[in-house]
Amino acid sequence: MAVYVVGHKSPDTDSVCSAIAYAELKKKVGVDAVPARQGDLNPETTFVLEKFGFDVPELVTDATGKRVILVDHSEVAQSLDNLDKGEIVEIVDHHKIGDVTTPNPIFYLNMPVGSTATVVKKLYEDAGVEISKEIAGILLASILSDTVILKSATTTDIDRKAAEELAKIAGVDDIQELGMEMFKRKSELEGKSAKDLLFRDFKNFDMSGNKVGIGQIEVVSLSLLDNFKDALYEEMQKLKEAEGYHSIFLMLTDIIQEGTELLCVTDDPEVVKKAFDKEIEGRSVWLPGVMSRKKQVVPNFEKAFSS
Amino acid sequence: MAVYVVGHKSPDTDSVCSAIAYAELKKKVGVDAVPARQGDLNPETTFVLEKFGFDVPELVTDATGKRVILVDHSEVAQSLDNLDKGEIVEIVDHHKIGDVTTPNPIFYLNMPVGSTATVVKKLYEDAGVEISKEIAGILLASILSDTVILKSATTTDIDRKAAEELAKIAGVDDIQELGMEMFKRKSELEGKSAKDLLFRDFKNFDMSGNKVGIGQIEVVSLSLLDNFKDALYEEMQKLKEAEGYHSIFLMLTDIIQEGTELLCVTDDPEVVKKAFDKEIEGRSVWLPGVMSRKKQVVPNFEKAFSS
Repeated sequence: MAVYVVGHKSPDTDSVCSAIAYAELKKKVGVDAVPARQGDLNPETTFVLEKFGFDVPELVTDATGKRVILVDHSEVAQSLDNLDKGEIVEIVDHHKIGDVTTPNPIFYLNMPVGSTATVVKKLYEDAGVEISKEIAGILLASILSDTVILKSATTTDIDRKAAEELAKIAGVDDIQELGMEMFKRKSELEGKSAKDLLFRDFKNFDMSGNKVGIGQIEVVSLSLLDNFKDALYEEMQKLKEAEGYHSIFLMLTDIIQEGTELLCVTDDPEVVKKAFDKEIEGRSVWLPGVMSRKKQVVPNFEKAFSS
Repeated sequence: MAVYVVGHKSPDTDSVCSAIAYAELKKKVGVDAVPARQGDLNPETTFVLEKFGFDVPELVTDATGKRVILVDHSEVAQSLDNLDKGEIVEIVDHHKIGDVTTPNPIFYLNMPVGSTATVVKKLYEDAGVEISKEIAGILLASILSDTVILKSATTTDIDRKAAEELAKIAGVDDIQELGMEMFKRKSELEGKSAKDLLFRDFKNFDMSGNKVGIGQIEVVSLSLLDNFKDALYEEMQKLKEAEGYHSIFLMLTDIIQEGTELLCVTDDPEVVKKAFDKEIEGRSVWLPGVMSRKKQVVPNFEKAFSS
């Protein structure tokens, strides 16, 4: 039976490309692996797959009866539906350790680095399998996407070294240029509904028993979002009511100015105060220097909710 | 602040020796790491530490305010008290993925191999750090202990290869002889109370919301336990009442005959039937070929409790 390699819901470039690259590695070592995705691709990921010549992976949303390798997540809330009705055979990730458990011992590698692609590159090396030019391209793109072109607080020396080596293999002369091309795609808002944008990169968390959703939209200038904010806030309120969230936060991240405006819809504004030592002004707080959900937002809220 | 490297409660040889060896590796790469243990050592572990010249690690049972690296477990029920009041900085293990979660991304490597020592050996190689003769000795002993001298169903080719290489470094000519020496110590029952024996290697699990304890006593012949069974069963009943267990199971494992008599104290004998397709006769079931709690007992009960 084939093994599906799949990233998180609301897939981003790292989630999709790490699944493709890791499935390729598994195939090289004799495992019948198929890359998959849990939802529609964002414009950045579409651009990356086209640029390096890959098809869009199969859509898989339910684990029932399937064997799966989870990449880029270890939270049940971000994973396939009916995860307990499938078999998890491996996990490869770079986030906090989530609440996925297994009945059997499996391979699980989580590294505190900027992208899952960085971990996948290491696993190619461990297995002694050569990385093709095309795979190097999508792994590089994943690192650039997840680390905001190596600028995010999550970026480690391991990511920088991996990006350099992958750029060489992929024949990419200018990492910065590729990164800006990608972020231009990511910033494209034309023709998008507020709902599309809210779910473009949206993750669910269980924080001390509370359902919390945290989305992120990265743009080259916050002013691009001026015309969307009202509609985004309305979508957040609707979603909160419809699905019983305690809080929904949306990070509007300016990758040039290097900071985040956090839109907040919450039952308890105190958690924002506890998390960032700042009061909500109107409907948001400005967080200078904050660009990483994983490293600069999720841990703060985890702490705020548990105290 | 020092980082404590610590294995599970009711420490066995792998839990103690992997902690010592991994702390040593962390020190070699510049981390102020201290090996620790959560409880008294069993006679086998005492023998191994004496043989290869190591002190008994510091006793640590509470995580409050501490930075910790967990080895050989990832279940909250098997870990330090107040785990949420400390900081978990790494996990190195070879069991099923447990319910430990973290607020931040950390290094977590779990491999489906016979012992945590096998994983620690790999991490020495990844770091390019030479394994000393003494460390090789305790890593080898850990593999032999956890894999019942490379005979348990959990034994992989990676463990066999690691054991061979470690034996060379440690100057151990006869792996089998070392293993039997160890198991003779493990089989020593003289002067032990039933309570000592029950807790010698006892692990707690949360199975679909039920508190389940599974212990194991490995002996070279089951007949050695004839005089202990009544008292062991009584201790199991007492413990069940006192601490609100749903079930307590005790594996009496004959490493020569290669099978396990499973003593059962449970609210629901059906789970044993579901797990092994066998009825309890009197107070136990005989499970031929079963020697591994991790691979042949825990997954069966997990399934039985969840169905």
